[in-house]
Amino acid sequence: MGLLVVGSVAFDSVETPFGKVEEALGGSATFFSTSASYFTDVRLVAVVGEDFPEKHINFLKMRRIDLRGLERTKGKTFRWQGRYGFDLNDARTLRTELNVFENFRPKLPEEYKDTKVVFLANIDPDLQRDVLTQVSRPDIVAADTMNFWIEGKRDSLIETLKSVNILLINEAEARQLAGEANLVKAAKKISSFGPETLVIKRGEYGVLMFRGKSVFSAPAYPLESVFDPTGAGDTFAGGFMGYLSNVMDWTETSMRKAIVMGSVMASFNVEDFSMNRIRNLEYAEIEARYREFRRLSHFEDL
Amino acid sequence: MGLLVVGSVAFDSVETPFGKVEEALGGSATFFSTSASYFTDVRLVAVVGEDFPEKHINFLKMRRIDLRGLERTKGKTFRWQGRYGFDLNDARTLRTELNVFENFRPKLPEEYKDTKVVFLANIDPDLQRDVLTQVSRPDIVAADTMNFWIEGKRDSLIETLKSVNILLINEAEARQLAGEANLVKAAKKISSFGPETLVIKRGEYGVLMFRGKSVFSAPAYPLESVFDPTGAGDTFAGGFMGYLSNVMDWTETSMRKAIVMGSVMASFNVEDFSMNRIRNLEYAEIEARYREFRRLSHFEDL
Repeated sequence: MGLLVVGSVAFDSVETPFGKVEEALGGSATFFSTSASYFTDVRLVAVVGEDFPEKHINFLKMRRIDLRGLERTKGKTFRWQGRYGFDLNDARTLRTELNVFENFRPKLPEEYKDTKVVFLANIDPDLQRDVLTQVSRPDIVAADTMNFWIEGKRDSLIETLKSVNILLINEAEARQLAGEANLVKAAKKISSFGPETLVIKRGEYGVLMFRGKSVFSAPAYPLESVFDPTGAGDTFAGGFMGYLSNVMDWTETSMRKAIVMGSVMASFNVEDFSMNRIRNLEYAEIEARYREFRRLSHFEDL
Repeated sequence: MGLLVVGSVAFDSVETPFGKVEEALGGSATFFSTSASYFTDVRLVAVVGEDFPEKHINFLKMRRIDLRGLERTKGKTFRWQGRYGFDLNDARTLRTELNVFENFRPKLPEEYKDTKVVFLANIDPDLQRDVLTQVSRPDIVAADTMNFWIEGKRDSLIETLKSVNILLINEAEARQLAGEANLVKAAKKISSFGPETLVIKRGEYGVLMFRGKSVFSAPAYPLESVFDPTGAGDTFAGGFMGYLSNVMDWTETSMRKAIVMGSVMASFNVEDFSMNRIRNLEYAEIEARYREFRRLSHFEDL
């Protein structure tokens, strides 16, 4: 029954110390669905403007992503421009043009309403809840968010979290959302808002997953050249949720493997600009890197 | 034949958001040898002043640390005063009084000279080399260093590294020593200076070990209350080298287990001020936490 994602489709202009791209395909829903498409059927809900070229549509179709929920409307597609310094940890946003995304009201096609696994990418928490009212009976709802909503729409975000099973969030934002510097305490606090599983993204330091009393720490893949971290978080989420939607199993072991699969996909994504590296991966490459994560982090049964 | 450590014994005055201690037992050689004493026989070389109290001597003796190399000289013991903020990552040094440590010239007792495993804690690289001339034929030499020597005595440090098998170093200092922002490239560069094994300490993000083409990433233990990070790096080194000195095996598996044992000891150390938490650990506690590290980082064969 596939995996539903609601988020943004955008044009990214990105500058890093290693080069730049202009108006490359980007957006949370795009990175997410491309990454997830290696594992499961993806149903996308997003909006683009009249300027969105056929070649991008064809690419998403080639990845077998269901585009019945991709609305095309009068106006220009969402644009983001950013720059990274040598540490590649934080992007400096130079320009954001919301364009058609400003009035985005996600509307699920009838055929999507039975979706069992839902990912609410980083959009207005009011819209995230609105999406949930349109899904008939989801098994699992995962969501992402950011400092902008934590600061500006905290009450709405807390309301959304009541219906969220898995929250994916950056480390600094987890601390901010919980109002707590210690990450273990912050995780407990956030779980009390609703999500039984908390996935804390730490960039080059990997990922921490908190579930009840269990904690799992996954490393990031140590890469000799990181070209462009744009979309790494959404690519991670796509691998993570795509794997789970494939196995439809929520045991600790499957959740951990899903975290690693997300990390695998994110590690590919940062190797090149935009989505260049994850456009056409071989499944053998994905499996090989998954095994490398095992070699990277296991210290018994090597 | 035990494990030799050369470093400092000091009085630490530390303030964290959770409390403070005045003139508590500290110093790199003290944290290191206390931690290592759970795994192997430790031979200590350091200097203290006339003010060093008998109770500390008795504690170190109780831990069966060989103190024949602990010189007591005219003057006052090394004192350090520091303060940590809420993130507990970096100490702000408020005061350093080198006292008797200023003229420390390590002199190995005759009985130490056959030591096979040597740890050169963070001291002047000239002195580190001087120690090595006094050891007859060590199997493994490990060393720590810091930004102060990287900036002020780079050539001497590079000379020392030619004789070092394992370098333990903080992440930022690894980048500084290599002059390279990317950690994988930095590791290669540093290995070209001599050390075939590089252990990069990342505080709350754990440890990366580079050995040839192999990389191992160990997490830090997620603690709900971190009281005082002082000595965490040396406590880590003590567990790591203590374990290795016990098994006398340098295979990848043993090295990885040693990294985890170091992380276990460091995780205990930060739970309380000074060395309070690692003064009297039960071996069962150490084993239990080692198993917790496995549960924290393995994603197959749980």
